[in-house]
Amino acid sequence: MSGGRLSDPPIPSLGPVSFATTRRVVIEDVTPRVDDGRFPAKRIVGDVVTVEADVFADGHDAVAADVRYQRRGETAWRRVPMEPVVNDRWRGEFTVTDIGRLSFTVEGWVDHFATWRLGLAKKRDADVVEESDLEIGAGLMEDAAERAKNDTRAELLSATAALLGDRRRPIETRVEAALAPEVADAMRLFPDRSRSTVHDPIYEIWVDRERARFSAWYELFPRSWGDEGEHGTLSDVADRLDYVAEMGFDVLYLPPIHPIGRTNRKGPNNSLEAGPDDPGVPWAIGGPEGGHTAIHPQLGTIEDFRKLRDRVAELGLEIALDVAFQCSPDHPWVTEHPEWFAHRPDGTIQYAENPPKRYEDIYPLDFETSDPEGLWEALRGVFEFWIAEGVKIFRVDNPHTKAFPFWEWVIGELKRQEPDLIFLSEAFTRPKVMYRLAKLGFTQSYTYFAWRNTAWELREYLTELTQGEPAEFFRPNFWPNTPDILTEYLQTGSRGAFVTRLVLAATLSSNYGIYGPAFELMESTPRHPGSEEYLDSEKYQIRHWELDRPDSLAPIIRRINEIRREHPALQRMDRLVFHPTDNEQLLCYSKQHGDDTILVVVNLDPTHTHSGWTSLDLAELGVDPDHQFQVHDLLVDRRYLWQGPHNFVQLDPHLMPAHVFAVRRRVRTEEDFDYYL
Amino acid sequence: MSGGRLSDPPIPSLGPVSFATTRRVVIEDVTPRVDDGRFPAKRIVGDVVTVEADVFADGHDAVAADVRYQRRGETAWRRVPMEPVVNDRWRGEFTVTDIGRLSFTVEGWVDHFATWRLGLAKKRDADVVEESDLEIGAGLMEDAAERAKNDTRAELLSATAALLGDRRRPIETRVEAALAPEVADAMRLFPDRSRSTVHDPIYEIWVDRERARFSAWYELFPRSWGDEGEHGTLSDVADRLDYVAEMGFDVLYLPPIHPIGRTNRKGPNNSLEAGPDDPGVPWAIGGPEGGHTAIHPQLGTIEDFRKLRDRVAELGLEIALDVAFQCSPDHPWVTEHPEWFAHRPDGTIQYAENPPKRYEDIYPLDFETSDPEGLWEALRGVFEFWIAEGVKIFRVDNPHTKAFPFWEWVIGELKRQEPDLIFLSEAFTRPKVMYRLAKLGFTQSYTYFAWRNTAWELREYLTELTQGEPAEFFRPNFWPNTPDILTEYLQTGSRGAFVTRLVLAATLSSNYGIYGPAFELMESTPRHPGSEEYLDSEKYQIRHWELDRPDSLAPIIRRINEIRREHPALQRMDRLVFHPTDNEQLLCYSKQHGDDTILVVVNLDPTHTHSGWTSLDLAELGVDPDHQFQVHDLLVDRRYLWQGPHNFVQLDPHLMPAHVFAVRRRVRTEEDFDYYL
Repeated sequence: MSGGRLSDPPIPSLGPVSFATTRRVVIEDVTPRVDDGRFPAKRIVGDVVTVEADVFADGHDAVAADVRYQRRGETAWRRVPMEPVVNDRWRGEFTVTDIGRLSFTVEGWVDHFATWRLGLAKKRDADVVEESDLEIGAGLMEDAAERAKNDTRAELLSATAALLGDRRRPIETRVEAALAPEVADAMRLFPDRSRSTVHDPIYEIWVDRERARFSAWYELFPRSWGDEGEHGTLSDVADRLDYVAEMGFDVLYLPPIHPIGRTNRKGPNNSLEAGPDDPGVPWAIGGPEGGHTAIHPQLGTIEDFRKLRDRVAELGLEIALDVAFQCSPDHPWVTEHPEWFAHRPDGTIQYAENPPKRYEDIYPLDFETSDPEGLWEALRGVFEFWIAEGVKIFRVDNPHTKAFPFWEWVIGELKRQEPDLIFLSEAFTRPKVMYRLAKLGFTQSYTYFAWRNTAWELREYLTELTQGEPAEFFRPNFWPNTPDILTEYLQTGSRGAFVTRLVLAATLSSNYGIYGPAFELMESTPRHPGSEEYLDSEKYQIRHWELDRPDSLAPIIRRINEIRREHPALQRMDRLVFHPTDNEQLLCYSKQHGDDTILVVVNLDPTHTHSGWTSLDLAELGVDPDHQFQVHDLLVDRRYLWQGPHNFVQLDPHLMPAHVFAVRRRVRTEEDFDYYL
Repeated sequence: MSGGRLSDPPIPSLGPVSFATTRRVVIEDVTPRVDDGRFPAKRIVGDVVTVEADVFADGHDAVAADVRYQRRGETAWRRVPMEPVVNDRWRGEFTVTDIGRLSFTVEGWVDHFATWRLGLAKKRDADVVEESDLEIGAGLMEDAAERAKNDTRAELLSATAALLGDRRRPIETRVEAALAPEVADAMRLFPDRSRSTVHDPIYEIWVDRERARFSAWYELFPRSWGDEGEHGTLSDVADRLDYVAEMGFDVLYLPPIHPIGRTNRKGPNNSLEAGPDDPGVPWAIGGPEGGHTAIHPQLGTIEDFRKLRDRVAELGLEIALDVAFQCSPDHPWVTEHPEWFAHRPDGTIQYAENPPKRYEDIYPLDFETSDPEGLWEALRGVFEFWIAEGVKIFRVDNPHTKAFPFWEWVIGELKRQEPDLIFLSEAFTRPKVMYRLAKLGFTQSYTYFAWRNTAWELREYLTELTQGEPAEFFRPNFWPNTPDILTEYLQTGSRGAFVTRLVLAATLSSNYGIYGPAFELMESTPRHPGSEEYLDSEKYQIRHWELDRPDSLAPIIRRINEIRREHPALQRMDRLVFHPTDNEQLLCYSKQHGDDTILVVVNLDPTHTHSGWTSLDLAELGVDPDHQFQVHDLLVDRRYLWQGPHNFVQLDPHLMPAHVFAVRRRVRTEEDFDYYL
């Protein structure tokens, strides 16, 4: 029988049943956990982690429980007490303070003191307390005093125990002393956990830095950023970076900057024959000049890269590099490591294909290679090279066409060294595959957002992402366009469509990005009808962009990014709520964090004015139904007084297809209103 | 740091990430699994087990998967192929043929032949097949022929491989041969699983005998079955057993038959002082005559027990014994093993209490004893004693007041020896505790049924039990009454209430039981208003029952049990569906299995006639909306022709508060109808 772990003898799969244990507490359904604990849940530094579990024992004894947690590498476990919620569910919270992996579990035990204390109070009420009841309690306190012996509370416990046994005192006095809250507090601090149950397995949480949750990406092809007619360079990008920074982006994402293959190079608009001056596709990586750790000579040198990197940092941005693990036929690995590629029977290397289509300019790596160790190490080396150059963010091209175990290993290894790395998964494929990549360690993920246009589609998809299981591990990054994706909506909807998709991406998701300047200049012509490819796409040729065109969306983008920075509600996904309207073209939703509440209404029809009435969930907005509240449209700086759930909205996509309101809850009267203007 | 498994060094809790594996398939979300695989799912001999899993690989290669399963003790694993369902979900089925534990998991692999075959078909359609394509396929077939070398199909594969390489033949001929379905079938039988992934952990299924799912219990107090004024005996029960058998019950459940304690014995109606002739409470187990393995002398001898057991078997029933792990102060264990009980500071044994109430006739066992080994073994010994006497069914009293790990161990140990044992959990407590006991190994469980009276309550509860997670491990046993439970509904509803609750119990649940003759004689007077205790309860005194009373419900009970035996739909829980009606007093539901469809309508108001219209889910009933169908009321043998979802129903609780219809689907015309009469 081949493969796997099913060798003789069979693995016992159930948890162990210990003979004659006296550990009576049961712990079930610990959350957060992903895939039964196979993968860590994800959080951000500063987050409060809420751990819940069902904790109970046989019989009627009181139980107590702690969350226990520990950072990777620590030997001691921290504890926080849990509190009962309802129906045997318990909850404990702690704040994560460091980036990196964290382990946690739940420990529960029968709390004999709490049981005794409850019983004593009932017996007192029924006036049936006996000396022996007090003796039992005194014994429990003495034991706890022993456990507390290095603590100031030991004395309180000893003294109370002594008092309980002092028959010269009236029994009422002793019962009152026994029931004192400070005694209960001290007992809770030094419980008898000798028969406690510690939940197995232990679960994990991956803690990322803030940018993992809140980021605005700008993708550009450096070769198009030179002077007209020139091959742009990394230096050109550095020189013109103000343009990107002023729009408020914080991640500058560059498609591959490596040498481009010549064999079977593609020409403009994906033509099979490239002319001698055609620059080729940046994703056909590798030439005589080098592979994934080299820089395309026409873009500059490693020195130019470092200067760009420093300039990017100076402006408060970060560089994201594109990691595309595939090779042009001219990549050094093709000759140095032919065993990393699949071969055809004639000994040639297998090019990429999707029968009957062939992609002869690309050789995929073969993860069934006879040298997986060498391949995996080499790929890790690519990341390590760029990490050594100061890169912390990687946009990974088509990760779903590389073996899943590789990603879990490589991201785990790299993050162990550099916990603040961010990996964006560019997988546009089946949902379970996309989710698996996120579970394996990708920090953020591309999504189906580009193709979710109707209110119903957006509500369904966002509810799945923010309220369903994926919320624990999948961080969406919404892109209205990419060099591969010019949606029909953008092709046909003109300016209104671009603004609508921008507002949706930037306010529905705390991570979003655009491929520019195609986006802000509203590039919308497809290669042919029915195609999502751009005509004269930068993937195959150099373009020159007129950045200061008067109709550019740059000012709106800048305003959106300002609003995002000023409003914590837009910097996370956990409190996204959709509010009904009576017009399915008007999508209404709110986000909240702390005191900050943002309410968005978007006209999804890019060409016609729509109006309608909202049905706001006022409780979610924290708004009093009996009083007016102010909604302040941050896009156009206009304020309205609303009251109750039903308010009129009208949006003309030719002017502005969306309201992005800050909700101000304290407005009570018309006079007050002036104050907030 | 005390307790648990969190000792230094920390346990790695995530699944292993293998460096440089070439196993590319991922397997997720295998079902059925209970609590992440911690507990087995439950099935019945003859059931088809449907295993599902998400199975996928990176890239676009085809994958294949098998379910692998094995009975406990077997070394070889059986396989059944899985088929894709939708969205990367795969499904495979097998039938369980033996009682006992079964392990299963899922194995998946990249299917290079299927990938190649799909590509070849596309290339053929595009007319771009090359010799090298056929060479690749021939290589895959040769490898498979090697794996198949002891199978007749090896030749087909070798011959096809040879044909593919025979350039004298036209390429079309060779492509057709390569694509032949029988070649694909043979390749699927001998796949290359050298890089397969076997899902870890392995899951388990517990397979029970049929009676675990389908049973009708009758509880009686043997001491009330003698002649009037006498203490009844086991022989009296044997003599009058026809009465129970004729009603159609298959489990005869006896409350404890052991010696009853004298110390602090309770008198009639739970009075604290018992007179010298008061028989005491059967659950106050143990006296000088012995404990849990002795028989109360007034009930008879072990020989009498064996005769009763044989008579029970002769009539096609089984005995269920009550196992109540608690002791009267006179139980031999109290002196032989004082360490099995908790002690008060004065050295006396702690009686049961629920402060401020005391139950001084009962000593609970202490599962925190210093001798857990001795206690656990002794308790197992009780079961073993009665198993040796031929008892296979145990109704366990208050299992939730004994340590959970004990139950998992003892049931596991006992079932390992005698897989056809049945344990009924008598836990009326919080839902998670009840579910935990079922997970630990209890075969059937008491439920909240007795207190679910309204249509809404019944729909909610039954939906949770039959469609929710509990469906995998919790088998309800519905009791309209027990010696402890005389519900307000029965107290106030008179005959209609009894019949209604009988029909609900017997048709909603495939396992049900009654405490008789109190039930069929409609005993309904509580000890005091607001109490659920019977006045003059058999728990405390001997009663004499007039079994042949003309108003007895025995004939209806008999008819219900006949209907249950004749209709497989009522012998299981998996296809229970509620159908709306326009009157909330009319509860309508159906059950289905194979060709058998039962439709029940119950008037939940025990005192008033109600009428209304059904809204049947015709698809669930397998009924054509355009044609009439027959509903045959099996309770009163009356037939109706219905059509469409909306049909009129009227039920007078004083006549018969329920319809139990067999749905006959083939009735098409009025003429046909006669045929079915």
